[in-house]
Amino acid sequence: MKRCVAVLLGFSITCAGFAAEPRAAEAARRTRQWRVAHETQILDEVSRFLALPNVATTLSDVDRNADAIVEMFRQRGIVARQLRIEGVPALVVADVKSPRAKQTIAFYAHYDGQPVDASQWTTPPWQPTILPAGPVTPESRIYARSASDDKSPIVAMLAALDALRAAKIAPSVNLRFVFEGEEEQGSPHLSQYFDRFPNELSADAWILADGPVHPTRKQQIFFGARGVVDLEITTYGPSRALHSGNYGNWAVNPIVTLSRLIAGLRDDNARILVAGFYDDVRALTPLERDAIAAAPNADETMRRELALGRVEGTPLLEQLQLPALNLRGISSGAVGDKAANAIPTEATASIDFRLVPDQTPESVRRRVEAHLTSLGFFITRTAPTTEERLAHEKIVRLAWGSGYPPARTPLDLPISRRVRDVVSAAIGYDTVVVPSLGGSVPMYVFRRGDTPVIGVPMVNHDNRQHAPDENLRIQNLWDGIEVYAALFAGL
Amino acid sequence: MKRCVAVLLGFSITCAGFAAEPRAAEAARRTRQWRVAHETQILDEVSRFLALPNVATTLSDVDRNADAIVEMFRQRGIVARQLRIEGVPALVVADVKSPRAKQTIAFYAHYDGQPVDASQWTTPPWQPTILPAGPVTPESRIYARSASDDKSPIVAMLAALDALRAAKIAPSVNLRFVFEGEEEQGSPHLSQYFDRFPNELSADAWILADGPVHPTRKQQIFFGARGVVDLEITTYGPSRALHSGNYGNWAVNPIVTLSRLIAGLRDDNARILVAGFYDDVRALTPLERDAIAAAPNADETMRRELALGRVEGTPLLEQLQLPALNLRGISSGAVGDKAANAIPTEATASIDFRLVPDQTPESVRRRVEAHLTSLGFFITRTAPTTEERLAHEKIVRLAWGSGYPPARTPLDLPISRRVRDVVSAAIGYDTVVVPSLGGSVPMYVFRRGDTPVIGVPMVNHDNRQHAPDENLRIQNLWDGIEVYAALFAGL
Repeated sequence: MKRCVAVLLGFSITCAGFAAEPRAAEAARRTRQWRVAHETQILDEVSRFLALPNVATTLSDVDRNADAIVEMFRQRGIVARQLRIEGVPALVVADVKSPRAKQTIAFYAHYDGQPVDASQWTTPPWQPTILPAGPVTPESRIYARSASDDKSPIVAMLAALDALRAAKIAPSVNLRFVFEGEEEQGSPHLSQYFDRFPNELSADAWILADGPVHPTRKQQIFFGARGVVDLEITTYGPSRALHSGNYGNWAVNPIVTLSRLIAGLRDDNARILVAGFYDDVRALTPLERDAIAAAPNADETMRRELALGRVEGTPLLEQLQLPALNLRGISSGAVGDKAANAIPTEATASIDFRLVPDQTPESVRRRVEAHLTSLGFFITRTAPTTEERLAHEKIVRLAWGSGYPPARTPLDLPISRRVRDVVSAAIGYDTVVVPSLGGSVPMYVFRRGDTPVIGVPMVNHDNRQHAPDENLRIQNLWDGIEVYAALFAGL
Repeated sequence: MKRCVAVLLGFSITCAGFAAEPRAAEAARRTRQWRVAHETQILDEVSRFLALPNVATTLSDVDRNADAIVEMFRQRGIVARQLRIEGVPALVVADVKSPRAKQTIAFYAHYDGQPVDASQWTTPPWQPTILPAGPVTPESRIYARSASDDKSPIVAMLAALDALRAAKIAPSVNLRFVFEGEEEQGSPHLSQYFDRFPNELSADAWILADGPVHPTRKQQIFFGARGVVDLEITTYGPSRALHSGNYGNWAVNPIVTLSRLIAGLRDDNARILVAGFYDDVRALTPLERDAIAAAPNADETMRRELALGRVEGTPLLEQLQLPALNLRGISSGAVGDKAANAIPTEATASIDFRLVPDQTPESVRRRVEAHLTSLGFFITRTAPTTEERLAHEKIVRLAWGSGYPPARTPLDLPISRRVRDVVSAAIGYDTVVVPSLGGSVPMYVFRRGDTPVIGVPMVNHDNRQHAPDENLRIQNLWDGIEVYAALFAGL
C-alpha cells in the first residue's frame, strides 16, 4: 500500500520497476544458468584469492592481492592497472567499454581486510574453508578474512562478466572497476588518489559492493553510509604498578577512572550523553522516512539470533540513521590466570564513532573534548609528564584516528531510480531501500561534485565481518553474481 | 610525648624498650660486622635462589625452589624437611633448637611468586640483575620476581643464622622456620597443612617476614593483615562479535555494561558503595588508634613519588585499616593496532577485595551478590546459555577465588611487647607499629587458638611487588639480616 501512496505523491521510483526491466531480468536469468554450470570454478577463484593475507598495514601482503586482481582480469583479456601513491596500497582500475554506451559507471570494492587475532578463529583466517564438510549447498559458508568484507564481491563481479560474455549480452554502460587496498584502515589515501588520478577515476555514478544485504536475507540497496572516526582513551593511575594491598583505595585506579568516563558517555538506551552531540544531525527527508518504514523489521529475529536479552535503540534501521558510539576494546592490567594483585598504571579504551550528515570527524572531536574538559579532565596527546600528572587530578590521553565524514545520495535522482529498478528486476521483488547504511564506506570521496553513489551489497548480514570466523554464505555469492550481471547489462 | 602518655594509661610497651635489650642490640651489632665482610657471598646466594622460576601454578618450578631451600639449610648443617600434601607445593620446615630455650618461635616466609608478563619487564624476571651497574651500594637494587616478595627474606634469615654462629651467640628460643610455596595463590592448602602436621607446625608465636617496611624506610612491625578475596566479573553482549556500524548502539555493548557496573562499586573517595559493606568492620582499639597516630605520615612524599594528581582516602595508614576494592584488570575486544570496529561478545574485569576484621570472604561475597541482584543482574557461575541470555536483560558471570579472612594480634600481649622492644633495640629507634598491614598474609591460619602472630618485614615499600621490575633495595637486605639476628638472639 505504501508504494502506491508514494506514487500518488509523485515518488514513482518504488513502483514495480522490475516489470519494466526485461533486459536486466534476462541478464540475471542467463547468469544463473551459467553459474550453475560453473560453481566449482567460481569457488576455486574465490578460495585462491582469500588465501592471500590482506591486512593493509603489511604493504607486501596487500600488494600480492592487487597483483592477484590484475592477473584475474588478465585471464579475461582485460588490462587492469595499479594506480599507485608511493608506500600506499594500490588502487586497481580496469575498464570494460561498450561501443554504444553513453555513461561510465564505476564499481567499487576493497581487497584489504580487518586485522585478525588468529587464536580466536575456528579455522585459520587465510586458509579458506567451506563448512559444513561435504557437498556445497546454498547454505554452506566459506570461512576466511574478507570472505564477505570485501574480497568475494570482486570475484562475483568478474564471474558476472564471464556469464554475460557466455550469454553474449553486452554491458549497457562503460564499466569501470575500482578496487581499494586500505578501506579497513579508514581509506586514508583514497581522496589523494582522486586528486592525483582524476581521469582514471571519473565516472557518472558509483556503485559500491561493500556492506551486507538485509537481515531477512532480502536484497537491499543503500544511498548513504555513516562516517567514522575512532578514538583511543587512556587514563592514568600511579607511575608504577603498586601492590593493591598496600596502596589500594588510596592510589587512584585508572580502570575505575576509565569506567566512570565510559559510563558517562552513553545512557542505557543508545543515547550519547556528550553535550550537543545531536545538534549536527540532519533530519531525514519524507522519502527517506518512507523507505525506512517500508523496510522489513527483523529486529526481533536478530535479537533472538544474537541471544540478546535486550537491545538499546529500536528499530535497528532507524537507529542506524543516528550517530553511534561503540566501545570496541578495553585493556588494563590482566584478567584470568595472569591477574596480579596490583594497581595498574594506566587503562585504555578504544572507541569508534559512526557519523551521520552533517556531522564530521572534526565536529565529533570538538564536542567529545569539550565533554571531557567539562568533567575536569586535562587532555594530553602524549604520555603525560610527571609534572602534568602531579598538576592535574584527572588526566586523559586522546589519540584520534583521521576518520571520514558521512555521505548520502538523494533517493529521487534518475540514477537512483534506475539502480533500484534494475536490482528489483534481477531479484524479482522490490529491493529494500536504506537511506544510510550503518557501516562506513568512504562514500564522501566518491560524492565529490555530488556524483551519485549507491551501494548494492551482496554478502550475508551474519558474516562475522571484522570479527573471528568471518564468512560468506554461498547463496549470497550466487545472488550477487546475478545482481551485478543485471547492473552491467541493464543500467 | 605520645609514648609517655601511653605509659601513664598503662600501655608501657612503647617506652624506650630498646634500651632494655642489650643482647638484641649486641646481636645486631655483631651481625653487621659479619655482613660487611660477607656481602658478596650473601648476594650470590640471593641471586642463585632468585634465578629459579617460582609461579606456584607450575608445580615443578616451585618444587625446585623448595629443594634449593633444603640444600641451603643442608650447607649449614641443618636438616630441613618438605612437608607435602600430594600435588601441592611443599612446606619447607627446619628447626634450630637451643638447649635452655623455653619457647619455640616460628618464622614464616614464602618462596613462590606472582605470575609475570615478561614482556613488561626491563630485565628478565628470573635473571636477577643488580642495578645500577658498577659497585654495589646500599641504594643498589636487585631486580627479579620475588626479590622482595618473598624469597630474599629467606636468605636473610639464613645469613642471620650464619652471623650469630660466627659471633658465637646462641638463639634465645627454639627457632622453627616454615616456608610456604603457594602464598601468592592465596595459601589454599596452608590450613590443611596445619591440620595434617600439627606437631611439625606448632609454635608459641609466629613471626612473619612478608610485607614491606614503612615508606619512610623506617622499620615497621605489624600485628594484623587484611584478608583477601578475588572476583572475576564477566558481562555479555551479542553471542557473536558484530560489526559496530551495522549493530552499534542497538546490540548491547558488554564493555559499557561492565563500566557502568564498576563505576557503581566505589565513589571517588575510596568509599565502597556496596550496601552494608562496612557493617562487618570492627572498630579499632584506643591502642591501635594511638599506634596509627604515632606512625610517620609519608603520604605526600608517596603521592609525589608516584606522580599521583590526587589520592582517594587519607591518610594511607588509616585507609589500610578499612576494606578495599581494587580493579586489577579489565579486558574486552582489543585496543591499539588490533582494535577492530566490532562489538565484543563479553567483557571481563578482575577485582581483589581486602578484608578487615570481622569481614570474611563469605560476607563480602554475600553483600556483593546482593548488590548486583539489586541492580537487576542475573548472576550465573558458568557461561550463560542462549535461553538465559534471552531471558535476562542483564547477566553477570561471577567467579570467586577462595580467599581468606583477616586476622589481628592484640598489641598488649607479652610477646607483642617483646618483639617491639627487640626490634627497636636492633635498629636503635622506636619501630613503627601497624595494627593491620594493607597487604594480605594468611595470618588467620597461624592465629588458630589465638596464637600470637606478628609481622616483621624487611623489604623496601617501593619494590614493585606483584608488578613488573620487582626489586629489593640492598640496604633493606642488610637491615633485615640484623633485625632477624636480634630476634633469634633476643626473644
